[in-house]
Amino acid sequence: MTQLDHVPTTTTPRRGRRSVVVVGAGFGGLQCAKALRGADADVLLVDERDYHLFTPLLYQVASCLLNPSEIAAPVRKVFRGAPNLRFRQARVVGVDLHGKRLTLDDSSELHYDVCVLATGSVNNYFGNADVARQALNLKDLGSALKLRNHVLERFEHAASTTDAAARARHLTFCVVGAGPTGVEYAGALAEFVRLVVPDEYPELDGPPVRIILLEGGDRVLPTFKRRLSAYAQRQLELRGVEVRLRTLVDSADEVGVVLHDGTELATSTMVWTAGVRAANLLPDGAGRITVDDHFRITGVEGAYAIGDVAAALGADGNPLPMLSPPAMQAGRFVAREIVEGPSSRPFRYRDKGTLATIGRTSAVGQVGPFTFTGFLGWVVWLVVHLYYLIGFENRLQVLMRWAWYYVHLDRPVRIVIRAHPAGPAEPAP
Amino acid sequence: MTQLDHVPTTTTPRRGRRSVVVVGAGFGGLQCAKALRGADADVLLVDERDYHLFTPLLYQVASCLLNPSEIAAPVRKVFRGAPNLRFRQARVVGVDLHGKRLTLDDSSELHYDVCVLATGSVNNYFGNADVARQALNLKDLGSALKLRNHVLERFEHAASTTDAAARARHLTFCVVGAGPTGVEYAGALAEFVRLVVPDEYPELDGPPVRIILLEGGDRVLPTFKRRLSAYAQRQLELRGVEVRLRTLVDSADEVGVVLHDGTELATSTMVWTAGVRAANLLPDGAGRITVDDHFRITGVEGAYAIGDVAAALGADGNPLPMLSPPAMQAGRFVAREIVEGPSSRPFRYRDKGTLATIGRTSAVGQVGPFTFTGFLGWVVWLVVHLYYLIGFENRLQVLMRWAWYYVHLDRPVRIVIRAHPAGPAEPAP
Repeated sequence: MTQLDHVPTTTTPRRGRRSVVVVGAGFGGLQCAKALRGADADVLLVDERDYHLFTPLLYQVASCLLNPSEIAAPVRKVFRGAPNLRFRQARVVGVDLHGKRLTLDDSSELHYDVCVLATGSVNNYFGNADVARQALNLKDLGSALKLRNHVLERFEHAASTTDAAARARHLTFCVVGAGPTGVEYAGALAEFVRLVVPDEYPELDGPPVRIILLEGGDRVLPTFKRRLSAYAQRQLELRGVEVRLRTLVDSADEVGVVLHDGTELATSTMVWTAGVRAANLLPDGAGRITVDDHFRITGVEGAYAIGDVAAALGADGNPLPMLSPPAMQAGRFVAREIVEGPSSRPFRYRDKGTLATIGRTSAVGQVGPFTFTGFLGWVVWLVVHLYYLIGFENRLQVLMRWAWYYVHLDRPVRIVIRAHPAGPAEPAP
Repeated sequence: MTQLDHVPTTTTPRRGRRSVVVVGAGFGGLQCAKALRGADADVLLVDERDYHLFTPLLYQVASCLLNPSEIAAPVRKVFRGAPNLRFRQARVVGVDLHGKRLTLDDSSELHYDVCVLATGSVNNYFGNADVARQALNLKDLGSALKLRNHVLERFEHAASTTDAAARARHLTFCVVGAGPTGVEYAGALAEFVRLVVPDEYPELDGPPVRIILLEGGDRVLPTFKRRLSAYAQRQLELRGVEVRLRTLVDSADEVGVVLHDGTELATSTMVWTAGVRAANLLPDGAGRITVDDHFRITGVEGAYAIGDVAAALGADGNPLPMLSPPAMQAGRFVAREIVEGPSSRPFRYRDKGTLATIGRTSAVGQVGPFTFTGFLGWVVWLVVHLYYLIGFENRLQVLMRWAWYYVHLDRPVRIVIRAHPAGPAEPAP
């Protein structure tokens, strides 16, 4: 049992120093707090988790390649040696932007001079409760571990049953959504199957494993150039992934998924990567928070919103994509605004390109007018991801693990661990 | 939801080949199965977990130094390339030694010619339900992760409360039992506190952290030589651990532990390492299973019991210690008996010595007439543990992590992860 002590605590800003509260330790919030290191302000970062998560590699945790700690940096470790940066592990349950006050899940209140909302996004099941209940996903460490356990259990169940239909159902994996997360996970799962299953599940010489990638649009990786989408689809199919375009999911339960055209797929695994929505904590919150071109929340003073939760417009007049680079750039921009005062220039998103990996030695990328595929794309992907991984030790470990895996074709982390529940559960999808 | 298909499956031994079922993938069971590689028998290893756990390093997972997969080897990976070794992830719920039949948790039955029970041990709370409910422990990966989460949460709660008594309670850690596990965990926790807390919890400049090691006997490490016990106690005390000997726990709840002499310790953490008992699955099972000096279960044919669950007697007439070395030696002995038939010589336990580490550069060890302490002891400890870690990759990773930690004084894995529950929970203590 957690023992929260219901003693209201209040930030007590030192005389003359502003107090800044940043809500969320994702890409935007962490960059903002780090950029305020040494500033003339007391900064408190609040998150319900005690770590920053490098979400682009979550699918590698789910596919048994990386350990959780290799993509998770403890916030307090990041804040070492920065006396003006503090951390508080709590969930924000109330936001009063006019009263400049946040309420935490232990009923204590935080008063601030400046607030930065960087609460990110949650899975979007578009109101389909069946799908929400049945979906596995890749949004946080808990769900990635749940997915890893679930997939490993499917192989064990398939190995121990003599019912051919049940075995086929256990060995059919549906991935919904062919954006980067869906494509990368489907590719990684196909590699896991190819590298591990023939040697370690001699019982499974019957029906083949099926990995089905369902996409509502007319191509995989819809935000990439058409040429790259075509390459990625070909690479997935070469690896045995069945790609079905213009396909929507109507409902799902423990034994199958029903598509919009009535087709039934017998499966006990549906991984949902088909959409996210803003995790908006405002009292009247729905959708992304409206902000101006300096990330100031409309109608209040001293409040910013950045990243997935903010509806900042890019130079093209469309909302910025819900990706880590705009969130990180916004975090640094807002930190500068807080320290130096409002700048005359509005924020301008610098798109450094996008990358997605399909498997070992195969990835696609686009940087400005250039595109990469195949081995070159994979090397670029590897270098970029290593560079952005927080913390030198993680980078070294992940590099070593990748080198090992490259040589030995192994997936080392295939163990089912169930932590005893402790404290509050992960939020429901 | 797990989807167990209730189709009874039966082992179908090939004509002329014996079927051997080994229950338990701990030290004894895994060694026995590995030693049967290539033998003229179909071997099935059954365990409810899909990995072999290197339990001597569990306290390093709990104290944020190692990742779970670094001390857990997937059984199917260990069995690669051995066509006569199979694995089944299941819990054995019924044992019929006379009918040569095991019942699994999915109601299917396994028939065998030879059975080896290697089910190990579980925590022993000596019938104290209060203590059992409140105790954290170091018996499996789930409980080690729960302990890690719990301790990290204590520091977060202490950092966010302004109630001095609550803060002191959060920062008081009781470890019950000063055998190797209790001593090693108390030492590792003291190092964690020293290396991480001052730099990362600037809020906690108030009451100090207390680590209290409670032992019922008159010295720590009671199975070691008196000189080593004294050294270990001195080293623990130098690191700030309060050692209380001749002290028994009467009861425990969420806010404290009551000792037998009436003393109350205000704490929300009680780690129980004070005893284990045999995990005896036999219908009339209580305590360790009686076996002869060839590990044959008394009164039946074709059934062996090894390791913690077996009451084999050593050369001195006492039951063998509940440690990994006798279990591993017994596993290999029984495999040889199965392959070659009963040998004329009974089993003879070769005690290669015992080691326990108190912290960085400090350990105690005894090998025959020799004893080691300090840095030399620590190096011996390190080499021995690396040597026995299953799987070369794990060894390399752990070595690298230790080297890193030795240089950087860090505890890298301090993140709280709660996996969404999937499938059946861990067994209750």
